[in-house]
Amino acid sequence: MSNFIEALQQHYPEKSPLQPFVNANHRTPWLNDVTEKHQRKLCADLEEAIRKSGLQDGMTISFHHAFREGDKVINHVVDTLARLGFKNLTLASSSLMTCNAPLIEHIRNGVISRIYTSGMRGKLADAISHGLMTEPVQIHSHGGRVHLLQSGELKIDVAFLGVPSSDEFGNANGTSGKSRCGSLGYAMVDAHYARKVVLLTESLVPFPNMPASLVQDQVDFVVPVDEVGDPAKISVGAARVTSNPRELLIARRAADVIAHSGYFKPGFSIQTGSGAASTACTRFLEDRMQKQGVVARFALGGITGSIVDLHEKGLIEKLLDTQCFDANAAASLAKNPNHVEISTNVYANPSAKAACCDQLDVVILSALEIDTQFNVNVITGSDGVMRGASGGHCDVATAANLTIVVAPLIRSRIPTVVRQVTTCVTPGSAIDVLVTDHGIAVNPARPEVAERLVSAGLRVMSIEELYQRAIQLVGEPKAIEFHDRIVGVIRYRDGSVIDVVRQVKEDNE
Amino acid sequence: MSNFIEALQQHYPEKSPLQPFVNANHRTPWLNDVTEKHQRKLCADLEEAIRKSGLQDGMTISFHHAFREGDKVINHVVDTLARLGFKNLTLASSSLMTCNAPLIEHIRNGVISRIYTSGMRGKLADAISHGLMTEPVQIHSHGGRVHLLQSGELKIDVAFLGVPSSDEFGNANGTSGKSRCGSLGYAMVDAHYARKVVLLTESLVPFPNMPASLVQDQVDFVVPVDEVGDPAKISVGAARVTSNPRELLIARRAADVIAHSGYFKPGFSIQTGSGAASTACTRFLEDRMQKQGVVARFALGGITGSIVDLHEKGLIEKLLDTQCFDANAAASLAKNPNHVEISTNVYANPSAKAACCDQLDVVILSALEIDTQFNVNVITGSDGVMRGASGGHCDVATAANLTIVVAPLIRSRIPTVVRQVTTCVTPGSAIDVLVTDHGIAVNPARPEVAERLVSAGLRVMSIEELYQRAIQLVGEPKAIEFHDRIVGVIRYRDGSVIDVVRQVKEDNE
Repeated sequence: MSNFIEALQQHYPEKSPLQPFVNANHRTPWLNDVTEKHQRKLCADLEEAIRKSGLQDGMTISFHHAFREGDKVINHVVDTLARLGFKNLTLASSSLMTCNAPLIEHIRNGVISRIYTSGMRGKLADAISHGLMTEPVQIHSHGGRVHLLQSGELKIDVAFLGVPSSDEFGNANGTSGKSRCGSLGYAMVDAHYARKVVLLTESLVPFPNMPASLVQDQVDFVVPVDEVGDPAKISVGAARVTSNPRELLIARRAADVIAHSGYFKPGFSIQTGSGAASTACTRFLEDRMQKQGVVARFALGGITGSIVDLHEKGLIEKLLDTQCFDANAAASLAKNPNHVEISTNVYANPSAKAACCDQLDVVILSALEIDTQFNVNVITGSDGVMRGASGGHCDVATAANLTIVVAPLIRSRIPTVVRQVTTCVTPGSAIDVLVTDHGIAVNPARPEVAERLVSAGLRVMSIEELYQRAIQLVGEPKAIEFHDRIVGVIRYRDGSVIDVVRQVKEDNE
Repeated sequence: MSNFIEALQQHYPEKSPLQPFVNANHRTPWLNDVTEKHQRKLCADLEEAIRKSGLQDGMTISFHHAFREGDKVINHVVDTLARLGFKNLTLASSSLMTCNAPLIEHIRNGVISRIYTSGMRGKLADAISHGLMTEPVQIHSHGGRVHLLQSGELKIDVAFLGVPSSDEFGNANGTSGKSRCGSLGYAMVDAHYARKVVLLTESLVPFPNMPASLVQDQVDFVVPVDEVGDPAKISVGAARVTSNPRELLIARRAADVIAHSGYFKPGFSIQTGSGAASTACTRFLEDRMQKQGVVARFALGGITGSIVDLHEKGLIEKLLDTQCFDANAAASLAKNPNHVEISTNVYANPSAKAACCDQLDVVILSALEIDTQFNVNVITGSDGVMRGASGGHCDVATAANLTIVVAPLIRSRIPTVVRQVTTCVTPGSAIDVLVTDHGIAVNPARPEVAERLVSAGLRVMSIEELYQRAIQLVGEPKAIEFHDRIVGVIRYRDGSVIDVVRQVKEDNE
């Protein structure tokens, strides 16, 4: 049939690169084999998927952390890569947890040499804070991670994504199968940006496993595995539910602040972070919403069972969910049509064509430290050791109309309100109100909010007063001693460097 | 804060491109303005969106054809571009219809100089077949269009996508609003690949219009308009429902072929094209499915009300929908959770990481001509004039396990079965069975299928016999006379050139 091509060249010389037809399946050879056409993505085991992915030393691998402390993919994959002799890899996980302590060994042995993550906890964070790595860890926010992927600084070669269920083509979700994590909002981004995408699935179900959160046209290989995660451990740690009376007091006060802030009206929107007090605040809001007939348009971000409860009672119309913080949230995502899974790009990337956080009225966030300029630290503890996560903190803080930080004034005889944060993750200009167990402070940039709270009879103080009160109670804490060496780089959501974390000296502890 | 950067440079020289933090909204200035943060995508009118899109002479614009003959976007946008003085544009619409006749004027005036489309009908197709354009039209399949976008041959600068409803951020769907077209499967691809995406929406609804078919992170501008399409005209033409007794006879025979083909068993899958007989065939299948207790796993492609009917009766588990062929299908997509919208990439792109058509058991397709080698023409009529569309024909034909073409042996005293098709769109190797009103022919490459049909008492003939019968009844048609000049290039799904269409001579008519 090449006479067509000759004719085209003769009449339209610019069309000459066109190729003549060869045969029906010339570029789709798998269609000639009925088994191959169904099974070409299926791998017998992880080793086969790694081999087929083309992963090489020095490349970047990625993971999601939807299972949080219950994750069974990250350690397993890195163990396997170590056994196969891989070296010098960049680990780009949407976050890392206490359960990832086994990575220490792989960092020591040169399997992992660079890390991008939203945060770290436990032994791994401790070892890195004490100088385990040659290169500093890059700490990004959830939105900022997508910005780094879009800008090309972070290039994922192979994403290893654990999913509760997938079909043979890679249509996957987090709401069916044995172990349900709910939203795959983090994984959706990796599936979009990674050069090769490997799904590890607990349940291999018949095609079509649709509607799908990760879609077949994003997936290269599918590996059935025994387990990808333990959903019972999703709500361990940061996402726990509190019964601590001080946290409940703060939560109640935060609800008061919301109710009188000027933003609490029909059609408002809200995000509660994963902190215990912020989660608890949801429960106190319910009463006020019922009494005042206020129905929220949407809740955003990590979704908890208490937010789901409000949704099912008709008090929140839609839930936009990047991460389910507990089993109730995952169950809701499976059954409630207005509980909608969104990627972290749609959630909070400052470079996305639009981010949902820009639509947000009220957000409740936590803090390890907040200083008298309202700058917030959610990464390093009072000993200078990393023990938290950037998360969506700075993304949502600057985007929302009213950003409330909730924190106890003092934790274990250490002030939370300080003169200057050990590490700045979120700039003070993004924070509007601080709610503590000793009083409420409003950023002087928001006098109209302070006025509304005072009119409502709430106890508003300056943040300097809160600081002085903390010092009065427990004294000025001893300055932490650091080496010069930088162990962590804190990236603001736009990719810029907002702070660094230096190696702590042993004698801080 | 630039001391961080200096420290980084000192310790880690390779990190020097890192930028210091400036302020919270340095790269998101719209967050400083509460109006701008909500309305930055909204345009007062189409002209504003065109101006902001950066469209220039010589660029490529795209459209979807979900409203088929009811479309009110393509002509409106091109009229506007003509008024604004644009020239030399490439028009890349997923397809073009009879309603697009006004484009003739814009081609004459040099506004449109190149066209990529799945097909053409009516006066536009007639004018192009008679040499209206300097450059030949590139005719692609639905899957092949995405291949051309992936390969980079087709680069969309600005996509103008009409949607029934959108919010201010561009979360859009085809299932709510005044005029519902249903699936936005074609538009999903344009939203993914276009450099700039302009939504024209009939209903501007409050954020969040989620779940969304086109998502806010794909959309640049949103323009409220009076109308985007008339859904009553979606089923006009190719997608009409038949009461023609000959078409019903063919449909019944096609159902017999399916029932006895060896593929009709629990869990099978099916696609019926948009042809009248193939749509009607669905109704005849229902009886057999009920009697034999056969439930299909999925139906694929363009979805009709009759397919929806089987789904709602529990006879088809899932509907994977790239295009709703009528209002009943659109209504079903809005309410049935297992009626799932898929993009044409997921549907049928041979270069996608997976295409649903590869999972298909049985497809029923139509033909304008089929030759004794089973090659199929769905583009040119018996006068050599273009009057059809490539559609998903070649995509699904080669991918499905059993590909059935349904066609009357003779149309208006012109044989459908011919010695050689005027234009080859789908190669004969992809076709398994031809069902006509005069008998059934099976491709000699599928002897096992022929055997099953004969065993079941069906009247199987050779395609040569069908050809001879047609000739006997109406005689050999006069050969069509063409000029040398090429007016259309038929691209196979993999981008190769499978045939060309030459300019017809006036005296054929």
